[in-house]
Amino acid sequence: MSVFENITVPELLINESIVRANIKHMAEKARQQGVAFRPHFKTHQSAEIGEWFRQEGVRAITVSSLRMASYFAAHNWQDITVALPVNLREVECINQLAAEITLGILLEDAQTTRHLDEKLLYSVNAWIKVDAGYHRTGLAWDQPEALIQCAQAIQNSRHLHLQGLLTHGGNSYHTSKDTIPTLFAESIQRMQNVKLALLAAGFQDIKISVGDTPGCCLAPTFQGADEIRPGNFVYFDAQQYQIGACTFEQIAAVIACPIIALHPDRNEVVVYGGAVHLSKDTVGIEGISTYGMVCLPEGEHWSTPITGAYVKSLSQEHGIIILPAGKIAQLSVGDLLCIVPAHSCLSADLLGSALTLDGRRIKMLSLRDA
Amino acid sequence: MSVFENITVPELLINESIVRANIKHMAEKARQQGVAFRPHFKTHQSAEIGEWFRQEGVRAITVSSLRMASYFAAHNWQDITVALPVNLREVECINQLAAEITLGILLEDAQTTRHLDEKLLYSVNAWIKVDAGYHRTGLAWDQPEALIQCAQAIQNSRHLHLQGLLTHGGNSYHTSKDTIPTLFAESIQRMQNVKLALLAAGFQDIKISVGDTPGCCLAPTFQGADEIRPGNFVYFDAQQYQIGACTFEQIAAVIACPIIALHPDRNEVVVYGGAVHLSKDTVGIEGISTYGMVCLPEGEHWSTPITGAYVKSLSQEHGIIILPAGKIAQLSVGDLLCIVPAHSCLSADLLGSALTLDGRRIKMLSLRDA
Repeated sequence: MSVFENITVPELLINESIVRANIKHMAEKARQQGVAFRPHFKTHQSAEIGEWFRQEGVRAITVSSLRMASYFAAHNWQDITVALPVNLREVECINQLAAEITLGILLEDAQTTRHLDEKLLYSVNAWIKVDAGYHRTGLAWDQPEALIQCAQAIQNSRHLHLQGLLTHGGNSYHTSKDTIPTLFAESIQRMQNVKLALLAAGFQDIKISVGDTPGCCLAPTFQGADEIRPGNFVYFDAQQYQIGACTFEQIAAVIACPIIALHPDRNEVVVYGGAVHLSKDTVGIEGISTYGMVCLPEGEHWSTPITGAYVKSLSQEHGIIILPAGKIAQLSVGDLLCIVPAHSCLSADLLGSALTLDGRRIKMLSLRDA
Repeated sequence: MSVFENITVPELLINESIVRANIKHMAEKARQQGVAFRPHFKTHQSAEIGEWFRQEGVRAITVSSLRMASYFAAHNWQDITVALPVNLREVECINQLAAEITLGILLEDAQTTRHLDEKLLYSVNAWIKVDAGYHRTGLAWDQPEALIQCAQAIQNSRHLHLQGLLTHGGNSYHTSKDTIPTLFAESIQRMQNVKLALLAAGFQDIKISVGDTPGCCLAPTFQGADEIRPGNFVYFDAQQYQIGACTFEQIAAVIACPIIALHPDRNEVVVYGGAVHLSKDTVGIEGISTYGMVCLPEGEHWSTPITGAYVKSLSQEHGIIILPAGKIAQLSVGDLLCIVPAHSCLSADLLGSALTLDGRRIKMLSLRDA
């Protein structure tokens, strides 16, 4: 019996073979390039999928919250970097984790570094967050004074141990496939400049950690980096496909949504599957903004995207899908559509668990388990 | 001690007095207008807040999923309408609920009605979903033939009992404050036309159920309707404020977010609070698209919005806030910002629980408890 027959509500469906191939591919690229592979686990948030990474030799990971760090620490991950500027209000949680595992955190100013250190009870690894061009967080790569001050504060601390420089080249999401390798190389070059400034100021053993999924997929070389931290590649999604970071065949996750109404007069169907399942993140495909790419169940997998189909709007629980004329006549209320989400990290977070194509439930961390 | 001191991570903060006043206000308006009040519980999704409605005399409710219906049925709600076209894949859940409570569902075609009836084991109340101008779901109000066919299929069924006509005037969200009362009245008039067509075809006791929050707030009269189903008014949010459906003082919920970085050179601060806390729904305020309105903690409550401040972008866990020059100098890493979300239904759903201003945790239904 097909997995599709048992689906009653919107579900995150994953193809385990593709997930494992995506993990293996990135792990091998990192090995070939001689860099450490510290994948970001915020996309899947699952202890079980974490084990699939462990089977590829992964021992160190990245997460986006201390809560996620606690979850993976409880599942025997001993080396975790929390890739968000440190939240001073969570020092208690930092101390609990630092007592048990090798915890890495991000710092980007000297004063926060001093405030944090006053309250730390255990050793914590510190990375300086560098803004190498994305302008979201971090100290500007071309202002070495502030960087040196931050490094100095870490060196003067009781509990913090300077590991190096960390950046996230999120600007790769807003450019084209052809430009990404250049952008990635430029980002590493800027990090190297910062490193030289720190070495000149007397600091030693400065590592460089980089890693957005588009950059790590498309860059031919990681030269100049010591560590990569991509996350989204585990599933990929419509945004990555649109950027050109993956092929359609590498996409490992869709949201299966039951059809609840047909409106052929306006080429629309309504699915049970809304903003609380897909998220309101969008992707532009052929000039149209959509919440995902629309596919059909096909055998034991999903089809290629239906040409001309898109997700026009999302309410809390329902989605309006535009389909080309004629396609709706082949569908009935109760059928499923498989939607490749615009941004799989957010959809996976919303759905809170996944279902493999052979019908196995994969548990995830849940925000609401707290 | 202020509730703000104990906050460590992004939290949905609610002002219980305002929530209760919002409930009382709408319940009284419904009473004065002589219509049934069947509030939509998808916004708060909380058994405890449900009790605050019960204290105002509410006995019948609306929800947006069968799972939400099961949750509230388990909390002693005996009359629940699921305001989404029926999902044929959940017949088992419908039967479980219908065995225990008065369950209402939405139908919008004769064939689905027949397919459903074949599998029903218990009595279920049926509402015909009418499209009175929003064009999301429902049978078009001006095509009485299809409506009569659907009503006929319900009447011919073994288990379905026709209650009447139900619409959601979601188009009120895309218009201006001045236009909403006219739109609301027009929607009721269209429903009355459908009712007349059904009466002429021999159907009896046809009720009319309407109810979007902007319409129910701004319409001076509910004449012609038998029931209203607003939901968002329990908290309101930046979208409702922008439409003019509420004053700022009626907004009952914010997301408290810790500041994790300051970037005064570009008038930005970074908060711990991203797409997985606020949702990526937006609102246009003074020509700028923002994920919410930015306020400060002030005594035991939150301040009015900071003029010129907005939420520029959201990643999975962090948000970039634009603040006017000079304001950042008054802030430190570790301080809180209070963000009125663009769409409180989605933010509440994401956060999965709320905290009252006196520090009490309010539990909610969690998608991931399933």
